[in-house]
Amino acid sequence: MKRTKIKALLARTAPLENVLIKGWVRTRRDTKEFSFIEVNDGSCLASIQVIVDAGTPGAEFLPRISTGAAVAVTGEMVPSPGKGQAFEIRSRGLELVGTSQEAYPLQKKRHSDEFLRTIAHLRPRTNKYGAIMRIRSKTSHLIHRFFEEEGFFLIHTPIITGSDCEGAGEMFRITTVSGSTPASDDFFGQETNLTVSGQLSAEMMALALGDVYTFGPTFRAENSNTSRHAAEFWMLEPEMAFCDLTGNMDIAEALIKYVVQGVLESCAEDIALFANFVDKTLMKTLTSLRDDAYIRLSYADAVEILLKAKKPFDYPVSFGIDLQSEHERYLAEEHFKKPVFLYNYPKGIKPFYMRMNDDGETVAAMDLLVPRIGELIGGSQREEREDKLQERMQALNLPEADYWWYMDSRRFGSVPHSGFGLGFERLLMLLTGISNIRDVIAFPRTPGSIDF
Amino acid sequence: MKRTKIKALLARTAPLENVLIKGWVRTRRDTKEFSFIEVNDGSCLASIQVIVDAGTPGAEFLPRISTGAAVAVTGEMVPSPGKGQAFEIRSRGLELVGTSQEAYPLQKKRHSDEFLRTIAHLRPRTNKYGAIMRIRSKTSHLIHRFFEEEGFFLIHTPIITGSDCEGAGEMFRITTVSGSTPASDDFFGQETNLTVSGQLSAEMMALALGDVYTFGPTFRAENSNTSRHAAEFWMLEPEMAFCDLTGNMDIAEALIKYVVQGVLESCAEDIALFANFVDKTLMKTLTSLRDDAYIRLSYADAVEILLKAKKPFDYPVSFGIDLQSEHERYLAEEHFKKPVFLYNYPKGIKPFYMRMNDDGETVAAMDLLVPRIGELIGGSQREEREDKLQERMQALNLPEADYWWYMDSRRFGSVPHSGFGLGFERLLMLLTGISNIRDVIAFPRTPGSIDF
Repeated sequence: MKRTKIKALLARTAPLENVLIKGWVRTRRDTKEFSFIEVNDGSCLASIQVIVDAGTPGAEFLPRISTGAAVAVTGEMVPSPGKGQAFEIRSRGLELVGTSQEAYPLQKKRHSDEFLRTIAHLRPRTNKYGAIMRIRSKTSHLIHRFFEEEGFFLIHTPIITGSDCEGAGEMFRITTVSGSTPASDDFFGQETNLTVSGQLSAEMMALALGDVYTFGPTFRAENSNTSRHAAEFWMLEPEMAFCDLTGNMDIAEALIKYVVQGVLESCAEDIALFANFVDKTLMKTLTSLRDDAYIRLSYADAVEILLKAKKPFDYPVSFGIDLQSEHERYLAEEHFKKPVFLYNYPKGIKPFYMRMNDDGETVAAMDLLVPRIGELIGGSQREEREDKLQERMQALNLPEADYWWYMDSRRFGSVPHSGFGLGFERLLMLLTGISNIRDVIAFPRTPGSIDF
Repeated sequence: MKRTKIKALLARTAPLENVLIKGWVRTRRDTKEFSFIEVNDGSCLASIQVIVDAGTPGAEFLPRISTGAAVAVTGEMVPSPGKGQAFEIRSRGLELVGTSQEAYPLQKKRHSDEFLRTIAHLRPRTNKYGAIMRIRSKTSHLIHRFFEEEGFFLIHTPIITGSDCEGAGEMFRITTVSGSTPASDDFFGQETNLTVSGQLSAEMMALALGDVYTFGPTFRAENSNTSRHAAEFWMLEPEMAFCDLTGNMDIAEALIKYVVQGVLESCAEDIALFANFVDKTLMKTLTSLRDDAYIRLSYADAVEILLKAKKPFDYPVSFGIDLQSEHERYLAEEHFKKPVFLYNYPKGIKPFYMRMNDDGETVAAMDLLVPRIGELIGGSQREEREDKLQERMQALNLPEADYWWYMDSRRFGSVPHSGFGLGFERLLMLLTGISNIRDVIAFPRTPGSIDF
């Protein structure tokens, strides 16, 4: 007999004569006549209740069917008289597939997020962490589907890199030699690092294929123990040929709306868990992300608003500063109460590859600011003019020879093009209300933390 | 006016009064009255022909519209009198978006794969490399779609790891310190490496969520300069709870058939390029992969066949050897002439986590062998019994303490489970007939090679 997943069972509207389920026991409760077993198989948040009486074949296993044990159950799926469940299974046969030893740490009670991080290999068996992993999966799938529907090609940009994408952050070094062996004797014949961004490679592909995106792991060796930083995280980076800054914002806005709508549709049960128990404002945030037109505002105008704000900021505001999270959140959460694109940032706080505006002072950058998270997306129109790019590189003391292939793209059929980066874990935090990045990653990597 | 991609234009059956296209010039040919420009925008293999006469606004740019230049063209799409193209564009306006300097290396002629590797940033602008990149994208999307439809969750297993998945290969070390600083002072407080497999982590997730897969970059620091090895490549690793070796082979076979069918459907034009110019047997191979039932054969029976083979092998065959590529290819290419699963391998040549068979000599491993490539997939049913797993680890001198979390999964609701790994680049080589792994990766990493 073929096993049916619980998600498929619970999607039914009619009972079923014969079913086989397999999963893990969440709880067992015994009365004089019956045992009630909650079985979850990870396919969805909900468990299904199994009723076993003393005469059921396999009932002799009941004493060992404890929380965490794995079981296989055959029986009839019937309407449940109980509350909160449409169906239950009256068992005709019970099999103990795998016992759960007494030390099982996930007994039926609330566990702190901190404790659950120490058993990251078991925490996806809880409601909350099962839910975030399912949402993470669906969000990935929605991102791929959005870009495929929009005619983008998925590319895989290198993880090991010899370039540093303009010092976007501290890098991890990669080596196969030890001690003081010179880099010229190392595997690649030079110093190599873990990528901080696939953008420069993605630009090369966009200038051949049109619209592309890369979606993969990126790394920062920053020794900061905050709730928003991980050493390893996933980043989405689309890059579009023949696209200006407005087109860039259009794609970013359409993407977020598509993903939010898709998650609300496909993960309703899991999202409800977060809306009920993690962030009471979650549904409002998600509805706004899906339905509101996002504000588009120049950096200069944002500075004006911040200067007029009645709110005391820790960091003083003036034209030219790199906005802090408190400023970004003020704009999105308090002033506009919806997502805000800021654009045309001062050149001094942005990297060399962003397109210089005609004012000579600002570049065609854009950030998307959202409630609770601050910056979700950072992007720009790229400088496609060879001479302007050289000027900026010289001003920043970047050796052109290191970027010979990047410069080539400005010599041979250069076109206006744009792209952005979206921190995937930040998006997941936005979608769930989870406030620590460690809790949206299966096995997070942070300073000193490499278990599992 | 909104730009239309060439792929969308060529999919039409009717002419169009007004179009705007943007792309790169492949060739320009002048007659007394007209110039003919082939424009490609990367959206598909085919270019579209643009006809410009001297009176067209922008015609003054014609002398600078050389191979590689970027153009924008408005005009009318009309049926083409020429051969091999249904439509062409009679231009009403021509814009030179970006010139192509004289040194442009991709002039209209055949370039060797070796040369094109030195300009990996430009090669996707050629027919062949554009095609492989589009096929790579589509294949990725098909893999995601297959697993989503089958109810699998996509997980992201860590790239930076403190464990080594039983020495699946030489590893790259990751560090933020230099010289002789002890690993305890390093970023993670211990030695860390780039992952060689996400399997052990994936097992943890499968034992919570049911069916999962991880699809991401993996690494081997092997200093071997062959056409089949890269230091960085993508690997697909599904892992299924409540699944035995037969179920494992079923999923693997269904996946390959789904992907081949999808690529044949969606990438017909790009595949035809490879079938015509790279591998004349390609269509036969792909049809067999899609339509034939795959052979399933025990390792022992395979050894019998090899011993009886009339073919002289470089490596002698006997029960217990790790089959070489020549043996694998003989089975798939010559003996059966179709894909072959081998299963139940001798324990001595397989890692600790594979499930011991009742004979005590073989383990529940399976490899999928395919023509031209040899091993495409390697997988197994995992050892779910705590005592048997401990026995194997002791026999192999693996310290159980290093695997405490992995062992936990055998203590708390352990269930039969299975999974496999598929080398994504090998799949792409199979799908295209390309014989060097460097040519299916945008920016390949091999010993001494880290440009771009």
